[in-house]
This record gives sequence, structure tokens and C-alpha cells, in this order.
Amino acid sequence: MRVKGFKFASARSFQKKWDRDDVALIYSECEAALAGMFTRNKFKAAPVELSMKRVERGRGRAVVINAGCANACTGDEGLSDAEATAEAAASALGISSEEVLVASTGVIGARLNMEGIRNAMPVLTQGLSPDNLSKVSRAIMTTDTVPKRSFEETELDGVRCNVAGVTKGAGMIRPNMATMLAFIMADFIAVPELLAEILRKAVDGSFHRINIDGDTSTNDMVLLMANGAAEGAPLEQGSKACRTAAEAVTKVCTDLAKQMVMDGEGATKFIDLRIKGAKNECEAHQAAHLISESKLVKTAFFGEDANWGRILAALGRSEASFSPDEVDLFVDDICLVRNGKYQGKSVETDATKVLKNRSFAVTLDLKAGVAEYNVFTSDLSIDYVKINANYRT
Amino acid sequence: MRVKGFKFASARSFQKKWDRDDVALIYSECEAALAGMFTRNKFKAAPVELSMKRVERGRGRAVVINAGCANACTGDEGLSDAEATAEAAASALGISSEEVLVASTGVIGARLNMEGIRNAMPVLTQGLSPDNLSKVSRAIMTTDTVPKRSFEETELDGVRCNVAGVTKGAGMIRPNMATMLAFIMADFIAVPELLAEILRKAVDGSFHRINIDGDTSTNDMVLLMANGAAEGAPLEQGSKACRTAAEAVTKVCTDLAKQMVMDGEGATKFIDLRIKGAKNECEAHQAAHLISESKLVKTAFFGEDANWGRILAALGRSEASFSPDEVDLFVDDICLVRNGKYQGKSVETDATKVLKNRSFAVTLDLKAGVAEYNVFTSDLSIDYVKINANYRT
Repeated sequence: MRVKGFKFASARSFQKKWDRDDVALIYSECEAALAGMFTRNKFKAAPVELSMKRVERGRGRAVVINAGCANACTGDEGLSDAEATAEAAASALGISSEEVLVASTGVIGARLNMEGIRNAMPVLTQGLSPDNLSKVSRAIMTTDTVPKRSFEETELDGVRCNVAGVTKGAGMIRPNMATMLAFIMADFIAVPELLAEILRKAVDGSFHRINIDGDTSTNDMVLLMANGAAEGAPLEQGSKACRTAAEAVTKVCTDLAKQMVMDGEGATKFIDLRIKGAKNECEAHQAAHLISESKLVKTAFFGEDANWGRILAALGRSEASFSPDEVDLFVDDICLVRNGKYQGKSVETDATKVLKNRSFAVTLDLKAGVAEYNVFTSDLSIDYVKINANYRT
Repeated sequence: MRVKGFKFASARSFQKKWDRDDVALIYSECEAALAGMFTRNKFKAAPVELSMKRVERGRGRAVVINAGCANACTGDEGLSDAEATAEAAASALGISSEEVLVASTGVIGARLNMEGIRNAMPVLTQGLSPDNLSKVSRAIMTTDTVPKRSFEETELDGVRCNVAGVTKGAGMIRPNMATMLAFIMADFIAVPELLAEILRKAVDGSFHRINIDGDTSTNDMVLLMANGAAEGAPLEQGSKACRTAAEAVTKVCTDLAKQMVMDGEGATKFIDLRIKGAKNECEAHQAAHLISESKLVKTAFFGEDANWGRILAALGRSEASFSPDEVDLFVDDICLVRNGKYQGKSVETDATKVLKNRSFAVTLDLKAGVAEYNVFTSDLSIDYVKINANYRT
């Protein structure tokens, strides 16, 4: 999982009483083009404020990420802490502070342990290695149960290029924006504007399609860094190489998004929820997200109950246009409701068997048009409640 | 809990393997004026379709309500069953079928046990008594753990009048419409148009303000029947008597709404969630409902965790206008966040003590205007998931 010119490290900064690394450094040996997407929540954490500004420059070289403390709702002091984190990293790396971005995840309202951050810097810089991406994926975890990373190799105009990504997710995952931390590194090169376009499309096809609990966080961000260390020509808009590069980025993002849903807080099921035959994509989008957020639908999935009535009831309160006596509902390939009518016990028994799988698709065909949209979602389990009722204790 | 001219009964119709009454009859000895509000879900159950039509007449005398089977998504057969139910009641009561409304609650997709319904009719009509309202409140329960009824006595132009109501709720409760079953009986009299206005205002101030899980059902309805048996003059729009009558109806509805939240599926907390200082009521409304639906906020309440960060994060993704550094957050009278800033551990300790109560208020002051809105909501508990994962089994 090497991406040319990128090095990685992790260390302990003691944001919580954790017996593990909780701060990570991503570093590019040469200047990289940058693109970023950030939370749309009106309460933006200090690291988001700072990194949004730095992404505007379009260029950067390093990212410091800590877990355990979100540095959110911490006012001017929080912003100073975020700036001081970037400065400490810049000074340890011998680069400009402007070239360093920061990201945080964890409890809202608490101040960063800055002494811990400062003491971690020499460990981070000395630990940098092209083989340490897995350390980054572990250090940024909060309630994640498994580290998440993905890698794609591709060829752009005869030059082998690499794209790698890490993410942390679990709760607070919703498509209405970046909604978790994800860092994508590539060794091709493109101007920041084109990179931003590649990222936007990749996120639309991946992170924006996942929905665990409908909540969004103050800290979410997705960063894409492309440093050109593979030594190919800069990507040109509309070229075949550009499309191939964009596909690789989308693949990495989609793989990470799926991993995130699979590891959603307390999740026991992975559901690909598809709306077909919608009047337009906007309606398909709204219906898919509304259904995937329904607590009654999600608890039924947890109970492995083919409760098609709850799915139809959720669809019924969406803004999607359809005629109730035309809707089809499928669990994988099994048609449980055809033209709004339940297909009977024996079909339901087959559908219930599918629901016992770890992963399945639920498709609603509205027969009102040709638009489609899908969302990756999870069930709502007893463990989800346990995790979130006890998160801060 | 008598309302002049009204009689009540319950019986068994065997919709489920329940060892209890599951069908109820509300009967007015004289013709009553009618008003109703119905689910806005596009999938409307057969009893909703039928009762919506009958309410248009503005007059009626009886309501048959069954629990255990929703008679929803049952096509033309379901509509025939609903009509046959009304006919069976009409024939047993010796009135016209047009004067009978029906309501159902329970599992979606299953057909009514019509033999059970028909056999129950003689028991219902023979059991009619002015003192049996409590039997109705018990027979219409599904996952409710306690029956819910409310009663108000008032004086209109020197005539003593009574308003009584029963409701069943628990899950699928959301304000975007009637969203549960509620039946309000009054012995004053008013033309149906005025009655509809009284009901709309009462529901806006009560049932529309409750939010347990954001889901709405195919079957929800609120009916208000006023039979004039108290023998006062008909209410006139804008009169003092009309205002007093409307207040009594609103009181009954609000009391029932609160009881419903208290008995929300798995609920261990009752939260009065208030938005103050909003730019307009629409924004206050949207923010209050969004926060009250957040799974992260609700699980924090269940954990008795003063997790103000989650509340702010939910506010931050609402459409409400505000400046993050001006927002105040109160738990009862304790100001946990002032001008966007956390007020420290000792204040949080006090707030945590309040959260250990069964009932408390959470207030957000946005300082962006003078509009206000409040929602009654509950927490999201382990039992909520257990109940809903196993509902059909």
C-alpha cells in the first residue's frame, strides 16, 4: 500500500486514557495538490475551520490527525490549539505551517492536550515510513472496531500510479456532506481545481451514499492529496487518464464507504438500499435517505424481520412521486411486494432467509420514471444504543 | 369520565393470539358533529380511506376500532373488510352504515379476521355503557404499556360540558400529522366546520408536537365527535364559549400527547425540547423536530449524559439561522452552554443530576429572533430496539 512520495507515522498524544497511538501524520516529500470537502454543520470544529482555509491555497504537504478530542466548540482557544498543532508539525518537518492541515475526532467541547501533541511530534517525524499507512488507519479510530484502508493501482498514459485511502467512521455518518474523516493520497498530479472535481464526484458516489444514523458531525472532512511523485504528466480535464484516475479515487472512496457502513456503530447488517423508477434523482435521493434513517426500518433489519410494511410506510412519507398500487419491493431478487401487494407467506419466508445474511440489497421500484439512487446503510441494534449511551463514560 | 350521550364497549375479535379485548365501540345516542385528521402517508390503510370519506359528511354516531391488525396495504379486499366492519356495527346498532367510522392499528399487510369482528358485534352493543371509556382505552393498545385517557369538565355559557379522550400511541409517532389513534368525545355542539377548526388547533398544540421516532404510520387518525347532549347552544365562532371549548379540547389532546410520549416505546425519559429566539416559527419547528429525532441525542438522554455537543451538532445541521457563538443551551434552568461556550465541569455535573429525572426541559436560545416552538420527545433506549426488532414475532 505504498503511494510514491508519501510517508506515514503514528504516536501517542494522550487525548484520552487510551493504551494506543492516537495521533497520526501524513507527509508528502514534495508539495501536493489538495482538495477537500468539509462538514456543512454550522458548528465547525477548529481543525475544520483551519483546514478549510488551508485547502483554499490548493497546495500542502502534511496532515496531523488526532483521535479522542474533537477540538470542537472550543472557541478561540481551540483555533489557537489547531494552529499550534500545525506549527509544531511544520517546525518538526522543516516546512511552512501553511503547508500543514489538521483534523480531529472525538469528544466535543474538550480542549486538546497540547503538551501531548507537542511531545508526539519528534516521535511522528522520526517514525515516518512509506509502509506505515496501516498505523495511520489505526491511530485515527474512535468507536471503529476495525481500521479501514483501501488501495488501487492504475496506469495513466503508461505510468503506474497509486491511490490509497484511510478513513474512520462508525457513528455520525450521513451523506449530507463529508461526514467522517477520510484521507486519500495519490501519486498522480492535477491542478487543484481538477482535483476538487475528481473528489466531489468520488464523494457523491461513495461517502454521500452512506447513512448510518442520519447525524452529522462538527469535524467531518475528506482530503485528497496528489503529489505527482509517479512522474506522469499532469491530468487534463476530459482526458482518458483523468477519467481513469477519477475511477481509481472513486473506487477507493467506495471501498472505504462500504467498510464504514460494515463497521457502523453496532451494525450487524449491510444493506444496499436502492430506489428505482423514480421521477427524478432528487426524489430517489430523498426517499432512499429517509428510508435508510427510519428507526423502525432499521430495527426490523436488526430483527431479521421482512417487515415490508415499515419500508412502504417510510416510502409513503417521503416526497417521492408514485402510485401506491404500482410499487414493487425486492429483497435481493425476491419480489415481496408487487404492485403494492404483499406476495404471501412463502415469499416472505424466502425473504427472511436473505435477511439472515450479513449483506443484502433492498430495492423499491416506484415505476414513476427512470431515475435511480442507492444508499449503503446498516441496521439499528441494541449495541448501537449501548455504545452511544455510554460513549463519554 | 362520562360525556353525556356517549357509550362505550370493548370485546374480543381475535386479530392476534391475545388474551384480551382487541376491538372497541364508541357510540353516541344522538347524531354527533364530526371532525377528523388523518395520516399524510401516501400508503393509507383501508380504515383511513373509509373514515376520511365519512368525515366529509360532518356527521356520524359510531366508531369501531380494532387493534392487532392495521388492515393496511390490503388492496380492495381490505377496503371491503373496512366497509363490512362498519356495516356489521350499523346493523347491530340499528343505524346507517354511513354513520359508522372505523379505525385499525397493528401489523401491516394482514387481512382483518372478519369472523372475529362479526362475532364481537353483539358483545359490543350489549356491553355499551357510559362508564366504559377505560375499556376502550385498553382495547386499542398495541405496544402501549398503559392505557391513555383524559377528561376535562368545563362550563360554556352556564352549561356544564365534558370532553374526554382516549389514545394509543407508542411507536410511529411524529407530528407531521395525526400519527396515532385518538378519539375525542364532547357533549357540546358546533357545526362540523367549526369543530374541524377546533380540532386542527388542538392537534397543532399537542399531537403535532410529539416526536418519538420520526416515523409515521399508514393508519393514524384523530377524531373529534361533538353530540350536543349537554343541551347548550351551538358554539359560535369567536365567542367566549367557543374559546373555552377549544381550550378544553386542547387540554385533553395535550394531556394525551404527553402520556403518549411518556409511554413511547422503551422510553425512560420525557423531554420538553424548546427552541427560543428563532428567526421564525418555521425554523424553530424544523430545528426542534430534527434535534428530537437525532439518534445520538436520544441515546445520550438514555445514558443520562449531558452531551451538549451532540445537541449543538444536531442544531448545526438544522435549517435554523443562528450564530454559533451566541447560542445558549439550558437543561431545565441550568445554563450548560452560554454564547456557544461550554460552562465547565461543575455546571455539567448539575445538569447531569437533572438528566437523572424522569422528565426535564432542554432549551436552546438561538438569539436570532423571537419565535418559539417546543416538542415533547423521549429517549432512545435498548428496549426501543428490542421492542421493534421483535414486534411481529
